[in-house]
Amino acid sequence: MPRTKTSSALELLVPLRRDDPEPLHRQLERQLRDAVRTGRLAPTSTLPSTRALAHQLAISRGIVVEAYEQLLAEGYLASRPGGSTRVARAAIAPNTPTPASVAAAVAFDFRPGRPDLDEFPRAPWLRSIRRVLAEAPSERFGYLDGRGMPELREALATYLNRVRGTVADRELTVVCTGFAQGLHLIAESAVAAGARRAAVEDPSDPEYRAMMAGCGLEIVGIPVDHAGMRVDLLDRANVDLVVVTSAHQYPTGAVLPPERRAALVAWASGRAGLIVEDDYDAEFRYDREPIGAIQGLCSERVIYAGSASKVLAPGLRLGWLVAPVSLVERISAAKKTADLGSPALDQLAFADFLTRGELDRHLRRMRPIYRGRRDALLAALHRHLPMLEPVGASAGLHLLAWLPRELDEAAIVAGAEDAGVAVSGLASRQIAPGGRAGLIFGYGAIAEAAIDEAVRRLAGVVTRM
Amino acid sequence: MPRTKTSSALELLVPLRRDDPEPLHRQLERQLRDAVRTGRLAPTSTLPSTRALAHQLAISRGIVVEAYEQLLAEGYLASRPGGSTRVARAAIAPNTPTPASVAAAVAFDFRPGRPDLDEFPRAPWLRSIRRVLAEAPSERFGYLDGRGMPELREALATYLNRVRGTVADRELTVVCTGFAQGLHLIAESAVAAGARRAAVEDPSDPEYRAMMAGCGLEIVGIPVDHAGMRVDLLDRANVDLVVVTSAHQYPTGAVLPPERRAALVAWASGRAGLIVEDDYDAEFRYDREPIGAIQGLCSERVIYAGSASKVLAPGLRLGWLVAPVSLVERISAAKKTADLGSPALDQLAFADFLTRGELDRHLRRMRPIYRGRRDALLAALHRHLPMLEPVGASAGLHLLAWLPRELDEAAIVAGAEDAGVAVSGLASRQIAPGGRAGLIFGYGAIAEAAIDEAVRRLAGVVTRM
Repeated sequence: MPRTKTSSALELLVPLRRDDPEPLHRQLERQLRDAVRTGRLAPTSTLPSTRALAHQLAISRGIVVEAYEQLLAEGYLASRPGGSTRVARAAIAPNTPTPASVAAAVAFDFRPGRPDLDEFPRAPWLRSIRRVLAEAPSERFGYLDGRGMPELREALATYLNRVRGTVADRELTVVCTGFAQGLHLIAESAVAAGARRAAVEDPSDPEYRAMMAGCGLEIVGIPVDHAGMRVDLLDRANVDLVVVTSAHQYPTGAVLPPERRAALVAWASGRAGLIVEDDYDAEFRYDREPIGAIQGLCSERVIYAGSASKVLAPGLRLGWLVAPVSLVERISAAKKTADLGSPALDQLAFADFLTRGELDRHLRRMRPIYRGRRDALLAALHRHLPMLEPVGASAGLHLLAWLPRELDEAAIVAGAEDAGVAVSGLASRQIAPGGRAGLIFGYGAIAEAAIDEAVRRLAGVVTRM
Repeated sequence: MPRTKTSSALELLVPLRRDDPEPLHRQLERQLRDAVRTGRLAPTSTLPSTRALAHQLAISRGIVVEAYEQLLAEGYLASRPGGSTRVARAAIAPNTPTPASVAAAVAFDFRPGRPDLDEFPRAPWLRSIRRVLAEAPSERFGYLDGRGMPELREALATYLNRVRGTVADRELTVVCTGFAQGLHLIAESAVAAGARRAAVEDPSDPEYRAMMAGCGLEIVGIPVDHAGMRVDLLDRANVDLVVVTSAHQYPTGAVLPPERRAALVAWASGRAGLIVEDDYDAEFRYDREPIGAIQGLCSERVIYAGSASKVLAPGLRLGWLVAPVSLVERISAAKKTADLGSPALDQLAFADFLTRGELDRHLRRMRPIYRGRRDALLAALHRHLPMLEPVGASAGLHLLAWLPRELDEAAIVAGAEDAGVAVSGLASRQIAPGGRAGLIFGYGAIAEAAIDEAVRRLAGVVTRM
C-alpha cells in the first residue's frame, strides 16, 4: 500500500488571529508544534513550502520561515535534501496502537465460506472499472435510486434467469452490500410488515440468526436431515418466514429435493408465508446437475438472495435480492433509509463484468480448481481419517464430516488449531442441544497440494486423543 | 454501457431427466422454449454452441442440434451469420417496464448538495484503483474488520487532523456507506445506549430527521439564527444528542461562532450529551479562514461525520465517523451487523487517493471553479432579484436567499420549475411553522456561464406574480 506522501502544497488548518497580542510567527509556531505533538501532523509528512503556506494564510513568507526555523531547532521538524521540510521521524512517540493482526497465523485454512482470494480476477475487473470510468455518464456518480444501478439490476436479472432459473426482473431486483445487508433489509422489512417468527435451519449460520433476532424476530430452528430442512415441521412451527439454503445447505451440504421444494412452496402459499432463498454457493457444483432456484417456482412468495462473496470475493460486498412485487417497494425503501444505495462504481463494473461473460469465464476457470481440492480432501479424509463420514460434497466450497460418537468435536477443533489447522465444529452452528458432532471443511482457500498434509496433521491430533 | 454480449460457452440451467418418458430432445426443446417465453433467455442473447451444451448436459450433440432446429423453425431462435444461434429479437414481447428517468429535465439546476459530477477526477481515481489492484494483498478482498480498511482509517485520520483540526485516530475511525449510513449507525447506537431525544437544527434536512425518527428518536427542532443553532436553547430541550452542521449550517449557511461552540461543548460535558458534527462541506470556503472541527475541542463527546459526497461524488458512497472511545465499539458493531463492512476496493482506492494528495489537488482545482459560480450567482441575484437577501455564501456549495414577506415561496418554486429552473424552498426544511421564507440555491452543479440566465428566468417568474 502507498505510504503517506504529501505534496508540497498540502493545506494546514492553522487559524491565526491578527488581533491577538501574540505575534503571528509565535501563533504559527505554537500551532504547528501542537499539531506535531498531538499527531495531527504525522511523522515524516511533508509540510507546505514556506511560500505556499504564506500564501494560504495571507501572511508574509518571513513569518513562516521564522516559525519553521524555530521548530527545526526544537527538533519537531527536519529538512529534506531537496530543500523541503518534513515532520521529524521521532517527533512524537506513536500512541496509536498497532492494528490487531487480521487472523492468527494458520498454516492450513479449512475455514468455510472463503473463496480463493488469490484467484480474484484482478485484470478483468480492472478492465471493467476502466470501461466504466471512460464511458459512464456523469450522473451515475450522483445520488440515484436506492435500489441500485439499472445496468446492474438488468444484468443480474438476465444472469440469474439464465443460470439459476429464477424469474427475475430488473424492477424487482435490489442491489445491497453483500448478503449480510440483504438479510438485514429482509428482516427489517418483514418485521415492519408484521412478521414475528422466523424459521431457520438447524444447523445454520449463528451470526445471521443473531442479526435477525436483533431486528426483532423470534428465531425457530427447524431440524435438517440428509435431505435438508425438515419442511414437514414448518406447519407446526407457526412462523411468518423461513430462511433456507436449498441449493447447498449450510453447513451440512444437503440439497433440498423436489418434493420438499414443493412442500415448502405449498407451505408459503397456504399461509402467505415468505421464503428467503439464500443461494449462496449454487454456482459451484461438481457431480450433479444444477438445480434451479425455488424462486423460479413461486416468485410471489420467495425472496431470492445472492452475492458475489463466494463466486468472486467477499470484499466486493456486492449482494442482490429478487423480491416479490408485494415486497420490493418496502425493501427498496429500507435500503434507501439504510445508506441511500450502494457505491456506483462497483455496481457499474460488476454489470460490465456480467454482461461481458467474465463471471462465466471466472467460474469455468475456478470449478476444476475447487473440484480438485474437493477430490483431494475426500481422498485425504479416506486415507488418514477413515472413521469420519463426509457428506454434502457434490457442490459448494465446503463439506461436512460426521464424527464417530467417541470423538470430542471441541477437543479436536482446539487441538487442530494448536497444530496449525483451522477447522470448524458443527456445535456453534447448532440450535437444539445434543446434535451429532461433525467437522466443517472449507476447501476454497487451501491449496490442493497442502490438503493431504493438513488432514494428516489433523489425524495426528485425533489419534493422540 | 456495455450491451448484453454472451460468450458461446455460457451456461444454461436445463435440468434433464433421463428416467422421464419424454425424450431428451423434447425436454430440451420445451425448457428452452419456456426460457425464451418467460424472458429467462433475453432476446438477441447468444446460445451455447451445440457442442458446448451437449458437453455441459452430458448428452449427444445430435439431441441439441434437433432441439435447436425445432426452435429455429418455431421462430424462438435465429441463426447468426457466423453460425451461432441466438434468441430471436421478437421472441417475446418485453414486459419489463422501462426505467423511470432519473430526474425530470431541468435546464438550470440549483438543487443543493450536488457537486459538479463532470469534474469527478476519473483519471486519478483510475490510477488509484489500478495501484490497489496491482499491489493490495489478496486478504484485503476477504472478510475484514467491519470498521473499514486500516489503510483508509489511517489516511482519513491523518487528513482530518491536518485539514479539519480533529483529534482523530485510526482506531476511532469507522468507514461507512456515506453520511446517510453514518447517521443511521449513530442513531441506532445512541438508541441502544439509552438515548431518547435528539435535537436537530430548524431548518435542516428533513430526510435525515425522518431517518432518525425511524430509529426511535424523538426529534426536537432548535431554531437557527444568523449565527447558526441557538445553542442557548439546548438546555431546556432536554435531549440526549444534538446534530449540528457547525462549519456551514444547512441550509442557512451560518457558521457557528466560537462562543456557541464553547457553549455546545459545555452543554455536552455537563449533561453527558453527544454532539454529532455533520462536517458536510467544510472543505469549500471562499472568503473566510477555515474553522476547525468541534471534535478537536472535545473528542470525548463529539462524533465527527464526513463524506466524499460533496468533495468528490455522492455515488462513491464513502463516509466516515470519528467516534469517542466510549462509543466506537458500539458503532463498529452496528456497522458490522448492518453489512459486515463497506466494499474493499473503493476504500483502498480512496486511501491511496488521500495519501498521494489527490484530494488536496482536486479541492484546489475545484475551489476557484465553485467560487466563480458563487460570485456569478451573487452578482446575478443582485442584478435581477435585488429584493432577495443572500446569506451563508462564504463557504460550501449553496447559499440561502431570504424572500421579502410579500413573495410566496411555494409559488416561486413551482413557477421556477415550469420555467426550467430547479430551486428549493426553505419550507420543506423547516420544523416550526411560520418561519421566514427563502430560496436555497445550490451552485455546485450549474455552469458559471448559465447562472445569469437562470436567475434572469427566475426573476421573470417573480415579477409575473
